[in-house]
Amino acid sequence: MFSFSLTHRVAYYETDTMGYVHHSNYVRFFEIARTELMRTAGLSYAELEASGVMMPVLEAHCRYHQPARYDELLTLKATVRETPVTRIHIDYEITNEQGLTVCTGSTSLAFIDAATRKPRRAPDDFVRRLDG
Amino acid sequence: MFSFSLTHRVAYYETDTMGYVHHSNYVRFFEIARTELMRTAGLSYAELEASGVMMPVLEAHCRYHQPARYDELLTLKATVRETPVTRIHIDYEITNEQGLTVCTGSTSLAFIDAATRKPRRAPDDFVRRLDG
Amino acid sequence: MFSFSLTHRVAYYETDTMGYVHHSNYVRFFEIARTELMRTAGLSYAELEASGVMMPVLEAHCRYHQPARYDELLTLKATVRETPVTRIHIDYEITNEQGLTVCTGSTSLAFIDAATRKPRRAPDDFVRRLDG
Amino acid sequence: MFSFSLTHRVAYYETDTMGYVHHSNYVRFFEIARTELMRTAGLSYAELEASGVMMPVLEAHCRYHQPARYDELLTLKATVRETPVTRIHIDYEITNEQGLTVCTGSTSLAFIDAATRKPRRAPDDFVRRLDG
Repeated sequence: MFSFSLTHRVAYYETDTMGYVHHSNYVRFFEIARTELMRTAGLSYAELEASGVMMPVLEAHCRYHQPARYDELLTLKATVRETPVTRIHIDYEITNEQGLTVCTGSTSLAFIDAATRKPRRAPDDFVRRLDG
Repeated sequence: MFSFSLTHRVAYYETDTMGYVHHSNYVRFFEIARTELMRTAGLSYAELEASGVMMPVLEAHCRYHQPARYDELLTLKATVRETPVTRIHIDYEITNEQGLTVCTGSTSLAFIDAATRKPRRAPDDFVRRLDG
Repeated sequence: MFSFSLTHRVAYYETDTMGYVHHSNYVRFFEIARTELMRTAGLSYAELEASGVMMPVLEAHCRYHQPARYDELLTLKATVRETPVTRIHIDYEITNEQGLTVCTGSTSLAFIDAATRKPRRAPDDFVRRLDG
Repeated sequence: MFSFSLTHRVAYYETDTMGYVHHSNYVRFFEIARTELMRTAGLSYAELEASGVMMPVLEAHCRYHQPARYDELLTLKATVRETPVTRIHIDYEITNEQGLTVCTGSTSLAFIDAATRKPRRAPDDFVRRLDG
C-alpha cells in the first residue's frame, strides 16, 4: 500500500451557485492527488509522458459526503493498494479542516504507448517503488 | 422511462495535453444533459431552485470508452429509469458522430430544502411528468 | 467586417458562490464564439490545426457589465473588423435575453506554424472569406 | 505598494490540445493570487463575504508572453499600487521556473454590499493594512 496526501485551498472558481465546490471538481482534485503520489513514488507523470507513456483514465467514481465551500483547506489523499500491471487503481479520500470526509472515490487508469496509443505494462521502476 | 438527448460541440478549453476531452468534463456534460431532461419534463432546475429546492449530487460514476477531441459534435443522452422518491438516479450515454460510445455513467441526486438543507421528496409535478 | 452570433445556455458549473457566471468563463465563451465565426468563414479551427497552423492567444480583455446567472440563454457575438495579416483581432459582445450587455471584450491571436512554433501569415483562403 | 507571491503547480486539466495552459486559466490564477494577497493583508475574502461585502470583477486583462505546460511550477504575483476607495486595481505577473514571464495582467474589482448589491467603500481595516 502506498499513500500520499497534500492540501488544496478551494478557489472561488471551483464553487457554484449552491455555494459548494462543484461536484465535477473532485475528479480534478483526484488528479492533483495522484500526480503528487506518482512524483513521491519517483515517477513524475510529466516525465512519464515525455518518455512516451500516457495514462488515460478508464473509470472514475465519486461519492459526495459533505459539501466544501470557498477557501476551505482540503486534504487530498490518494492510495494505491494493488501492484499495477497494465492498469492502476487508485482510491481517494478528501477531508476538510474538521477532519470530516467530504468526498471519497476511485479511478482506474491504463498505461498506453503514446506513439501507438496501444496498452502496455506499467514501467518496472514505478512498480518497484510502489511495492518498496 | 424518460430519455432526452442533445448535442454538444467540444470546446478547446475542454481538451487537455493528450488531445482528448479531459475526463472531468464528462461529469459536466452529464449535468448539461440532465438540465435539459428536466426542462423537457416540465421542471427547469432554475425554477426548482427558485422555488426553494436544491438537488446536490450524491454520487457520480463515469466509464470512458473512446476519447473525444476538440470540435467533435457529441450527443449527450440522459435517461431516468425509476420514479424518483427522495433521490433521482440518472444514466448517461455520450456518443460521437460515428455513433461510437465515448462515455457512459450515472449520477444520484438528492432533493433537499434550500432553506434547511434537509432532504425532502421530489416535487409531485415532476414525478407525474416523468411517469407521464 | 465579419460578424457571427450564437447562443449559449449557462451551465451550473459555470456559476460561482456569488450566483453569477464566474468571470473567467467569459474568456471561454469568447473562444466558443470565434470557433463558430471561423467555421462560418469557411475555416474550421480544427481543420486549420490539422493542416499545421495554430492560433495561440496573445492578449485578452474583458469588461463585465451585468452579471449572468445559471440557465440564462446568452448571445455570444464575435466580430472581425480588420483583415488579419500575422495576427487577428476579434471583438466580442455577450448579451442576455433582455438584450442587456453582459460582457464585452477582445482577443488578439497569432498565426503560428505548429511544427516550428514560429509566426506565419493568416491562410489566404481565410483572409479572402473574411473580406467576403 | 503591497505585493504577494505564491507558487502554483500546473494541473493536467488546466492544459489544452496545444499542450499549453489554456489562456482562460490565467484569469483563475490571478484570482488565486489576489485571494492570498488579501489574506496576507489581514482580510480574507471568505470573511469579507461572510461580513456582507462582495467584490465582483469589473474588468480583466491578460497578455500572454510564454506558454506554460503541465507540471510547471509557476509563481503568481499580485500587486496593489494604489489605495482602493470604491474599486481596487490589482496587477499580476506570472513567471516560470526559469524566471521567464509567462503572463501579465490586471483586474479591477468593485466593493459591493451583498444584500443590496450596491457599491460601497473598501473596508477601512483593509485599506489601512494595504497602506501599511
